[in-house]
Amino acid sequence: MYTVSIRDHFMIAHSFNGEAFGPAQRLHGATYVVDLEFRRAELDADGVVVDIGRAADVLRAVLAALNYRNLDEEAEFKGRNTTTEFLARVVFDRIAEAIGRDELGPGARTVESMRVTLHESHVAAASFEGRVSAAP
Amino acid sequence: MYTVSIRDHFMIAHSFNGEAFGPAQRLHGATYVVDLEFRRAELDADGVVVDIGRAADVLRAVLAALNYRNLDEEAEFKGRNTTTEFLARVVFDRIAEAIGRDELGPGARTVESMRVTLHESHVAAASFEGRVSAAP
Amino acid sequence: MYTVSIRDHFMIAHSFNGEAFGPAQRLHGATYVVDLEFRRAELDADGVVVDIGRAADVLRAVLAALNYRNLDEEAEFKGRNTTTEFLARVVFDRIAEAIGRDELGPGARTVESMRVTLHESHVAAASFEGRVSAAP
Amino acid sequence: MYTVSIRDHFMIAHSFNGEAFGPAQRLHGATYVVDLEFRRAELDADGVVVDIGRAADVLRAVLAALNYRNLDEEAEFKGRNTTTEFLARVVFDRIAEAIGRDELGPGARTVESMRVTLHESHVAAASFEGRVSAAP
Amino acid sequence: MYTVSIRDHFMIAHSFNGEAFGPAQRLHGATYVVDLEFRRAELDADGVVVDIGRAADVLRAVLAALNYRNLDEEAEFKGRNTTTEFLARVVFDRIAEAIGRDELGPGARTVESMRVTLHESHVAAASFEGRVSAAP
Amino acid sequence: MYTVSIRDHFMIAHSFNGEAFGPAQRLHGATYVVDLEFRRAELDADGVVVDIGRAADVLRAVLAALNYRNLDEEAEFKGRNTTTEFLARVVFDRIAEAIGRDELGPGARTVESMRVTLHESHVAAASFEGRVSAAP
Repeated sequence: MYTVSIRDHFMIAHSFNGEAFGPAQRLHGATYVVDLEFRRAELDADGVVVDIGRAADVLRAVLAALNYRNLDEEAEFKGRNTTTEFLARVVFDRIAEAIGRDELGPGARTVESMRVTLHESHVAAASFEGRVSAAP
Repeated sequence: MYTVSIRDHFMIAHSFNGEAFGPAQRLHGATYVVDLEFRRAELDADGVVVDIGRAADVLRAVLAALNYRNLDEEAEFKGRNTTTEFLARVVFDRIAEAIGRDELGPGARTVESMRVTLHESHVAAASFEGRVSAAP
Repeated sequence: MYTVSIRDHFMIAHSFNGEAFGPAQRLHGATYVVDLEFRRAELDADGVVVDIGRAADVLRAVLAALNYRNLDEEAEFKGRNTTTEFLARVVFDRIAEAIGRDELGPGARTVESMRVTLHESHVAAASFEGRVSAAP
Repeated sequence: MYTVSIRDHFMIAHSFNGEAFGPAQRLHGATYVVDLEFRRAELDADGVVVDIGRAADVLRAVLAALNYRNLDEEAEFKGRNTTTEFLARVVFDRIAEAIGRDELGPGARTVESMRVTLHESHVAAASFEGRVSAAP
Repeated sequence: MYTVSIRDHFMIAHSFNGEAFGPAQRLHGATYVVDLEFRRAELDADGVVVDIGRAADVLRAVLAALNYRNLDEEAEFKGRNTTTEFLARVVFDRIAEAIGRDELGPGARTVESMRVTLHESHVAAASFEGRVSAAP
Repeated sequence: MYTVSIRDHFMIAHSFNGEAFGPAQRLHGATYVVDLEFRRAELDADGVVVDIGRAADVLRAVLAALNYRNLDEEAEFKGRNTTTEFLARVVFDRIAEAIGRDELGPGARTVESMRVTLHESHVAAASFEGRVSAAP
């Protein structure tokens, strides 16, 4: 199994609901350093898992839609705790959708699985991984 | 699959038995930077894999029982080489036991698997991963 | 010259005023991973620059006063852009004040200079360094 | 499952064929920081996954055969794009062959799988992982 | 003294002249991860050392002129060993020239000094630091 | 000013005297990841600060004399706390002596200053820096 991984980041404000979050119930924020991994059993004709340049562009576009925002005010996250785990899934789903729209090139449709890791500090991270089924 | 990961460290002295260890047969020591990962298929009602604050407390407590010690003199490790691999398993088992005692909260009982990685330098690490069956 | 360095972090929300900040004029946030360095020409009788345990406690306390907050609503930062550079200075000044109050022990009064670095992502950081004159 | 991981690096020149590579079609180069992971269900009698000293020697020898070279002029890579993914596989295969020749010791024949990761920068990496069947 | 630091990278091929370089006399290559630091005694009216967005754009442009190239064939480096130290100076000079052309904004003319660090692997780096006198 | 930096590590056991050290008064140990920096105003005829290969060999030899040892039993450290700060100075002095013996080549005699940093974990480090006067 081959994996290719690229890194980027985004910076947001948010707050959490639930006593378990303690002081993180207050409005605060985070930098998320994002590692996006694509996995495939075989390389394509060029000898790559995905076109890493296109992948980096798509990741940047997906993160730009979250970057420099207060997630508490984003309609799509209404009533949800935008935890690191939750946001890893959000990024995963949006990259999977971009693959479905052929934004990473038709070859990316044969990517089997992905893993999205969000590092929130030097001591904590969360990730979501799963299969990619590009066909709708 | 969701993963949450936290980092901490401990510092110990020990020596190894066996010619393969060369100069590491002498009493020496190590800093182990520990990455503890929890994995679960679904998030809980708060939107998390585990309560990261409680997890960090439990990890700190588990490492405190090893920290600043000469492992050669710990009864429980008598006759064992406390290699990085071996210690990764020790930390894994103790975290699993803490989950079984509900020290990470009852929700942590649905954690499916864990991975414990011990970085012993900038060029070497070892880990143990496995399923967690919290019920005794 | 001897240096001792410790690392911790804090997570805040804020926004910036000024066209140069582009989308960072919106309410967003950041994780700051903080490196605090103490410098001294000679070691003390224990062979250290500062008591690293007390230093870590003081750094944690200083960061706790900023952590999990929306800096736009903190009275002391009214009308200021809480940039990474600016916050590095804030942390520096508060550590210097703690030294002045002997919170790091009387030995810390002979610390000559400090450097505070705030890493805001894997690609950007800012720091403030200067002499420490503990006497008021 | 236990894993042991070691790190080393090599530095090469190469160029790529295919419009998708853009400016990387020109002769350029890369430093690859290599993480080599060995996985095994049980530890051996010494309490290790592999003899880490021998493993480091074998990795160094494998990388030395690539290091400080223009891969465009290596006969074995004729007509291939020596992408990061491709080179991860090359290193994997050569380590597997060394295991087959017992260069890591007879115990290493029970290594079940390996993962080779090549970091080409602070923002990009590729890896190949698979089972090791040491018997020819 | 305030410092702001940004990170980017470039990938080149080259070879060295001189027996001291051993196998590095062959054509090979490197990834250089670049840290560019700007230093100033006081912050500007916006509360920053430099406009970090413009600084990142200028660094990217400076590195793009080196990226994906065989430095042995660049006329300006004829007869020079393009060592990591040497290239750190090249990047320093080109950023200083960009400041002189006001490409980082007129405020950047008050930057007092810079440091450029090139990391060539996980175990080696080189840097050049010096005063910036933007006036020609 | 040019700087070249190389990284290596060593692993030791030791204990500290003094109540301030708390549990670190017990016999324990540490991995020290070492960054050794050489500084010089001008490059030599080869375009380097020092011969990095020879520097790496000398650093390895200096660390080998400390590696895999219980520092409490080394005669030269009798009655001293082998703190991270103290050990940074020990490494500094031994490298300076090696320069004086021309082990890094005669060119290294023009190195002006050095900095030795010992990272003891992901959150703590200490360093010693000073001028190098190679002449005895």
